[in-house]
Amino acid sequence: MRRSFIREILEHTNSETISFAGGLPDVSLFPHKALQIATYNALENAESLQYGTSTGYTSLKEQIAEYYCQRGFPTAPENILITSGSQQGLDIICRYHYGASVTIEKPSYLGALNVFKLNSMETTTVPLTEDGIELKSFEKSIAKSKLAYLIPDFQNPSGRYYTDKTRENVAKILEDSQKILIEDAPYSELYFDAPHKSISQMLSKQSYHLGSFSKVLSPALRVGWIRADVELLKPLIAYKEAMDLHTSGITQRIVSEYLKDGESFEKHLQTLRVAYKEKMNYFCKQLELHLPNFEYTQPKGGMFIYGKFNGVDSRALVQECLKNGVVFVPGIEFGGADDEIRFNFTHSNFDEITEGLKRIKSVMDLTNL
Amino acid sequence: MRRSFIREILEHTNSETISFAGGLPDVSLFPHKALQIATYNALENAESLQYGTSTGYTSLKEQIAEYYCQRGFPTAPENILITSGSQQGLDIICRYHYGASVTIEKPSYLGALNVFKLNSMETTTVPLTEDGIELKSFEKSIAKSKLAYLIPDFQNPSGRYYTDKTRENVAKILEDSQKILIEDAPYSELYFDAPHKSISQMLSKQSYHLGSFSKVLSPALRVGWIRADVELLKPLIAYKEAMDLHTSGITQRIVSEYLKDGESFEKHLQTLRVAYKEKMNYFCKQLELHLPNFEYTQPKGGMFIYGKFNGVDSRALVQECLKNGVVFVPGIEFGGADDEIRFNFTHSNFDEITEGLKRIKSVMDLTNL
Repeated sequence: MRRSFIREILEHTNSETISFAGGLPDVSLFPHKALQIATYNALENAESLQYGTSTGYTSLKEQIAEYYCQRGFPTAPENILITSGSQQGLDIICRYHYGASVTIEKPSYLGALNVFKLNSMETTTVPLTEDGIELKSFEKSIAKSKLAYLIPDFQNPSGRYYTDKTRENVAKILEDSQKILIEDAPYSELYFDAPHKSISQMLSKQSYHLGSFSKVLSPALRVGWIRADVELLKPLIAYKEAMDLHTSGITQRIVSEYLKDGESFEKHLQTLRVAYKEKMNYFCKQLELHLPNFEYTQPKGGMFIYGKFNGVDSRALVQECLKNGVVFVPGIEFGGADDEIRFNFTHSNFDEITEGLKRIKSVMDLTNL
Repeated sequence: MRRSFIREILEHTNSETISFAGGLPDVSLFPHKALQIATYNALENAESLQYGTSTGYTSLKEQIAEYYCQRGFPTAPENILITSGSQQGLDIICRYHYGASVTIEKPSYLGALNVFKLNSMETTTVPLTEDGIELKSFEKSIAKSKLAYLIPDFQNPSGRYYTDKTRENVAKILEDSQKILIEDAPYSELYFDAPHKSISQMLSKQSYHLGSFSKVLSPALRVGWIRADVELLKPLIAYKEAMDLHTSGITQRIVSEYLKDGESFEKHLQTLRVAYKEKMNYFCKQLELHLPNFEYTQPKGGMFIYGKFNGVDSRALVQECLKNGVVFVPGIEFGGADDEIRFNFTHSNFDEITEGLKRIKSVMDLTNL
């Protein structure tokens, strides 16, 4: 097993480094005071400190089920397994499907690629178009795979999203071929214009839908979940149990307390959408200004801008940039091309965005990369 | 994968059931108010809500290292990997040693048996004597194993502890054979008379020492750790990362805040030791009074009393008991004999202990079991 580039970088950067690398939320946008109060309330009862059940804290499962129902996706608490972040959710699923073949997007989420390796899974990649996954190749690939792993909303790393038509077609292909979908949806609520219907919703008997509070509340919570049909979910519980007994009852209760005021969560999501859209627009303007050769498509949500300096070896570039106090992730880490790059636009503030891009520009000028 | 009997029971008992089943701490002894305050302080800074590093929160690693040093076991923060409970610690180690052979005690911890199955490991069992593991059989078994998994302090389920002589002999055998020790130590601080030197301390290059805050602070935290030589620890980090990125920064900070007042933690441990010893003594007296046929050895620490009703099928007995509002774990679940039983004595209060044992007595009288 290799460590993830991003996680290693997190341990080697210092406070002076401007990081466009990790998929980090903006610290100033955390609902910090509300979470601090929720935390205090969560511990009001000493019973909150005791062992809990493997599938998760009942009230939280009910709240998540209700969230799906509100979005038109009928869901009961029995369809929810709370996990220690959605990273663990994916690992639980893949451990159960150990050694299976899986069709994935190219490029794809680094943490998922590591999980597939860890579980000896064979991956086949299908390129992303402007409309989502390339359907002809997907149909061909899935015929030889047991599972599909897709991130239809503002994909990590590419920032792409699937059109409604592509979603319907993907659901149809999976239904016809009777293959199982793992839909990873950490960015679904971070849309700039409009939300999209999940593919799982059209395929509820054959899908695992992975959710997370990391991008919309706080990643330090490490609270995520798997939504699936009861028959699909049931065998996973023994895995969850063997892996860490259950997710922290304290962090589950913090989320549950926070969500009791549904209106304030909705307001918080709206704040994030507006703020992140503004940051994305700013990042794009600064790119045009300082690095006009960077080719990319503006994302419609999420946390990433993905593109390329045509022909530039982005691994060599990032090594030079690291020495000059700025960092990003080369696309090759995600299975992308040698010249591709992923920028995170949510973590840094406006001044850091400008300064970071200027630093990249001067590295490129100096090194002739 | 089968689910654990204890975890399933936890989901099927109701508020009327008296449970001697799970290894649950006494809720009334949680340092509840102190943890609530620590929690509030832990969230004082919004940065606590951000992603953290895979190996764990630096201050907490320093505090744990200091704890080892105080006990005469030289340890640096680099020797510590924070895990989501020590259950995950064991799983990380076993995933790295996937498919390896391991020598274990008979009976052994149920959660560990599940981890070994999950990681396709072949187990060989060695009986426990009054002095700890049976040394001749251990020496023979370890010659054919890659690893040993031992719980020398107030073992789960047997309650046994290893004498100092046995510890030295085990260390010598492992050193001579160059095999690796996994020492699981969740109960080490819950001694009634005196602490014991860990075996890992005599074998620091060849051991993983698993620690946990579940039994001494709160299991809902899900904070544990692996202490190992840097060379042994290093390859585990990529596994931890792929499994759940990192342990909750919030729960890690709660523990770290709480531990800042080292004296009050020491006092809390002393309170636990005194209270649990008193409960154990009470449980034993009630056993003599109501179930004098139960054969067992009084434990010198930990949370369990293990023994047998000679010749009684304890699985049949527990099914009847469940219907009558009392539950325990049959020894066979831990790889023990058909007539063996594990009682947890820490969770119930004095009245519940008396009432629970009376209920077992009346079930035995009525069913002729």
